[in-house]
Formats: sequence, structure tokens, C-alpha cells
Amino acid sequence: MKVLVIGGTGTIGQAVVRELGDDNEVVVAGRNGGDLRVDITSPDSIRDLLQQVGTVDAIVSCAGQAAFAATTELTEEQMELSVRSKLLGQVNLVRFGAAHVVDGGSITLSSGLLAHQPARGSAAISMVNAGVEAFARAAALDLPRGIRVNVVSPPWVAETLTAMGRDPSKGLPADKVALAYAECVRGSRTGEVLDARDFANG
Amino acid sequence: MKVLVIGGTGTIGQAVVRELGDDNEVVVAGRNGGDLRVDITSPDSIRDLLQQVGTVDAIVSCAGQAAFAATTELTEEQMELSVRSKLLGQVNLVRFGAAHVVDGGSITLSSGLLAHQPARGSAAISMVNAGVEAFARAAALDLPRGIRVNVVSPPWVAETLTAMGRDPSKGLPADKVALAYAECVRGSRTGEVLDARDFANG
Ligand SMILES: NC(=O)c1ccc[n+]([C@@H]2O[C@H](COP(=O)([O-])OP(=O)(O)OC[C@H]3O[C@@H](n4cnc5c(N)ncnc54)[C@H](OP(=O)(O)O)[C@@H]3O)[C@@H](O)[C@H]2O)c1
Ligand SMILES: NC(=O)c1ccc[n+]([C@@H]2O[C@H](COP(=O)([O-])OP(=O)(O)OC[C@H]3O[C@@H](n4cnc5c(N)ncnc54)[C@H](OP(=O)(O)O)[C@@H]3O)[C@@H](O)[C@H]2O)c1
Repeated sequence: MKVLVIGGTGTIGQAVVRELGDDNEVVVAGRNGGDLRVDITSPDSIRDLLQQVGTVDAIVSCAGQAAFAATTELTEEQMELSVRSKLLGQVNLVRFGAAHVVDGGSITLSSGLLAHQPARGSAAISMVNAGVEAFARAAALDLPRGIRVNVVSPPWVAETLTAMGRDPSKGLPADKVALAYAECVRGSRTGEVLDARDFANG
Repeated sequence: MKVLVIGGTGTIGQAVVRELGDDNEVVVAGRNGGDLRVDITSPDSIRDLLQQVGTVDAIVSCAGQAAFAATTELTEEQMELSVRSKLLGQVNLVRFGAAHVVDGGSITLSSGLLAHQPARGSAAISMVNAGVEAFARAAALDLPRGIRVNVVSPPWVAETLTAMGRDPSKGLPADKVALAYAECVRGSRTGEVLDARDFANG
């Protein structure tokens, strides 16, 4: 299979590229690195990327930023980033990407547990994560040609906690998180939100 | 109590105004009618409205539009409307409205059952409805001064079905839907999404 991994240079994305790399042709897209460059906050940049890549069996997104701040302290910039990047950036990969995916191929996006397990300061993140999940569940009902769409909801990633100076044992290693993305690409699921912890043991 | 009902001229909003009007001072805001005008797609228009209204005990939103179209047929305009109106329009009522609500007062937004019961063509609507719900659940954890925030998820409204030439008996009358909004204003809930069908019998 030919698989396009957007955000394939990131913590989770690198692990997804390793997991899928053995038996697939993987094209890595990133903002500042990878085989091809893309900024998912720009619809035109997404269209350019897809044009360059042509047709693929699967698109995987491990990209997208959202802002952490208390509800009444969120700035316009933080709201715009969250909506343009993690929400619409990923949603646009489905809207524009479908035409570049083979019959029965798949698109897999990323959310996060804050969608349904909010914390103080997570209003913008919870909003965009839940929006990504609901979009995918609905899109699965009307995408053409059997194209599948799913979302992986990662817990805290161990490597991310280490980078933050926190206890990595409270998180799941990126290589384990990657197994949920691989399940979406290799399996036959559609319209599902996968809690990555449920797929950590292969 | 002084209650600001945004979208108070609409199908659900009129019923909310009737339900709350007996024992409260209700200020009705609408795009084209009501005591005061507001366009919730404009942050400045929301700020102007709040400035005019001053301090209230409760803000209720029965406003917000989102577009119905198959995932790959959604236009940029439809996506922008959905995000600017139903999602960010309502979210901004919380972000900016909190400063205008008394201690322990409430903000109540509207979503819809498509958030979690998607249908073909509902990708944008499901996305924004779920986003509103997740934002409110998270905001409830960090809003200051005990300010409460909840979401009412209406089913099909009988009057709306009638207007569409469909069978109204498949929907809930607006007066019944209004009871869930009243529960959010009068009760002590916060961070909840109320399925209006659960409150239809008072
Ligand atoms: N790590 C966690 O603990 C965790 C937990 C729950 C959810 N998640 C979610 O999972 C996703 C991936 O997380 P991660 O930890 O792997 O993130 P990461 O290490 O920061 O990597 C993000 C990747 O996405 C790319 N990217 C960011 N913004 C982009 C844009 N606008 N356009 C194109 N590419 C962009 C980055 O490229 P550059 O490096 O070149 O900018 C990088 O390749 C994110 O959506 C994150 O919210 C992560
Ligand atoms: N009716 C249903 O069956 C149903 C089911 C599920 C969810 N909902 C949701 O419940 C909410 C209310 O529904 P409804 O049927 O009562 O809608 P409606 O009859 O169309 O009324 C909408 C109200 O909101 C106002 N409004 C619309 N856009 C606005 C904007 N940008 N700024 C300020 N005000 C705006 C309208 O004012 P103008 O008339 O002046 O434009 C009107 O007062 C909507 O979010 C809808 O999606 C409705």
C-alpha cells in the first residue's frame, strides 16, 4: 500500500511511519520536514500536497495543534489556531483527500482523550477533538467508494511526558500508540474512534 | 432573574422566552428581531450586545446555524458558516458572556442529536454540535465565580417538522423542548448535556 502520513515527523507520526514502513510505501509530510511539506491550516497547501502525492491507499494524520488555556483566558489567536489546525486542518484532509484515496482506502485522523475527559484549561482542545471525532463518524456514512474514515484518540504519550519533564510511566509509548493507527489502515473499520490504549497489545 | 435569550425569536427560542417569561425579566436578542440585535458570527457584535445588556443571571442561546451536505460536497462557505455560527458563535457567548453573568449564574447553549447520532450529510453539523458540547463540559471546570454552563440537545422539533412538510408527531413540541433550557437556568447543573426528551415531562 501507498500511505501518506501527515505529521509523520512528530512523536506519534514517527512511530506510525516505523510501524507501517516495513510493508508499505510511506510518504512522510510535515510542516518543517519529511518527504513533502504541508501546512494543514491552509486548504491550498493541503490541495498542493495531494496533487503532488497523487493517489494513495491511505492517509494518516498525526498533525494538528490546539491551545491549552482557561475558558475566559483563551485568546482569539488560540481559538483560531485550534480551529484552523487540529479541527479544520484534519477535517479538510477528509474533504479534499477522499478524491485521492483508492476505493475502500482509508483516512485516519487524531483526536485525544480530552475530547471526553476534559480538564481545567482544555475547553478549546476538548472542543476540537470532539469535533474531529463527530465529523469522522458522520463522514463515514456518506464518503463515496467505500472510503473509510476513523479517528485515533491517543492518551498521554510516554515520550511527550518525558519531554515535559513528567513521569513517562503514566503514558503509553508512541510505538504502542501507533498500533491503533495501523489497525485503521490495515483493518476494515469505518466511523470509529479508537482509544489507542485498547490496541496497545497488538 | 434577568435572562438574556439569544435567538429568542426562533422556533425554540420563542418557547424558551414563554417558559421563562412569567417569573423572570427576559431580554430577547435576535439577528433580525427581538429587543436587541446581535449577529453571533461576529465577536464584536456579541461584545456590543453584552455591553448593552449589562449583568444578567443567565444567558441562553437558541441560535446558531450549520450546513447540511455530504462530506465531499461541503463548500468552504458552508464550513465557515457552521464554524462561525453554531460553534464559535455559541462558544464566544461563554468566553465573553461569563464576565456579564452573576456569581453562580448560568450560560446554556444549543447542540442537537446529530452530534452523536450522525446521518448522511451531517458531518459539519455533527462536528459543530459535538464541539459545542465538549467545550461546555470543559469550560464548566474552569469558569470563575461558580458560573454554570450546560448544553441542551434538542431532538427534531414538532413545529420545525411541520414547517418542512413532515410529520410533526415524530418531533417534540417546542414548549416541551423549552423545559430543558429552563432546567439549566433554574437548577444547579453544570457541565452537562441535556437530551431535551428527558425533560419533556417537567
Ligand atoms: N503526544 C501526546 O501525548 C498526545 C496525546 C493526545 C493527543 N495527541 C495528538 O496527536 C497528534 C500528534 O501528536 P504528537 O505528540 O506526535 O505531536 P508532535 O510531536 O508535536 O508532532 C506533530 C507533527 O505534526 C506536524 N504539524 C504540526 N502542525 C502542522 C501543520 N499546521 N501542518 C502540517 N503539519 C503540522 C509537525 O510538523 P513540524 O514538527 O514540522 O511542525 C509534526 O510532524 C496531535 O494532534 C496531538 O494533539 C498527542
Ligand atoms: N428545530 C429543530 O428541530 C432543532 C433540532 C435540533 C437542534 N436545533 C438547534 O437549536 C437551535 C435553535 O433552533 P430553532 O429551530 O429554534 O432555529 P430557528 O427557528 O431558525 O431560530 C433561530 C434563532 O436564532 C437566531 N439566529 C440565527 N443565526 C443567528 C446569528 N448568526 N446571530 C444571532 N442570532 C441568530 C435567529 O434569528 P433570525 O430569525 O432573526 O435570523 C432565530 O432567533 C439551532 O442551533 C438549531 O440547530 C433545532
